[in-house]
Amino acid sequence: MKISRIDHLGIAVKSIEEVLPFYENVLGLKCYAIEEVADQKVKTAFLKCGEVKIELLEPTSEDSTVAKYLEKGGRGVHHMAFYVEDGVANALAECDEKGIRLIDQAPRPGAEQMMISFLHPKSTVGVLTELCEKA
Amino acid sequence: MKISRIDHLGIAVKSIEEVLPFYENVLGLKCYAIEEVADQKVKTAFLKCGEVKIELLEPTSEDSTVAKYLEKGGRGVHHMAFYVEDGVANALAECDEKGIRLIDQAPRPGAEQMMISFLHPKSTVGVLTELCEKA
Repeated sequence: MKISRIDHLGIAVKSIEEVLPFYENVLGLKCYAIEEVADQKVKTAFLKCGEVKIELLEPTSEDSTVAKYLEKGGRGVHHMAFYVEDGVANALAECDEKGIRLIDQAPRPGAEQMMISFLHPKSTVGVLTELCEKA
Repeated sequence: MKISRIDHLGIAVKSIEEVLPFYENVLGLKCYAIEEVADQKVKTAFLKCGEVKIELLEPTSEDSTVAKYLEKGGRGVHHMAFYVEDGVANALAECDEKGIRLIDQAPRPGAEQMMISFLHPKSTVGVLTELCEKA
């Protein structure tokens, strides 16, 4: 697979409203979009920092995977998303062949009109890893 | 403060040797430097992904803060480092004025000839945040 950059960092938060002042008023970054991703049961807020997007993830339901992550004491960077130049489907096939455990067997729609797939953190040395491409 | 980009992501690992094959052989990134930072009691391996560096952090001593992080069950992204265009000392003064708790009161040398300072995660909504500039 051909990864060109880190597309975004997903940061799990209990409340976007509570954490946004740190990113905006202290770090001076700007939130340019708030979007609900019903499929993943999260509200997202996007800020840009250089070529990387910071995606704040607030669970909208108790059975959201992000809610469970926070409940278990998980904090901070929930996942790291790499932009794949030559296609996510292609990258998944390559990962599968190399024995990497997949969460998604095929690309599915994510926030920001992206097609996304997650690799399993058991196979990715502890970091939940997302592969993505523009839909 | 004027942040231009995410400089690097520090990822805590038990063994660089064990995790490097995932980054190199699966994601196709290249490790371009391995460096020991005696001050922080870690061995570091750097890979570049777009404009962001991935810094794998392996503790070299049991009393390294990274060792303690791993011991407590911490995994994945240990800290997020922002590149500050107008100086870390300046940024620290601004943070202090805004009530952000500091770990470092002044910039100190880090890996890759950088001057660095950490903000306290209690003040940075769960993500250990580093500010850095080229020394």
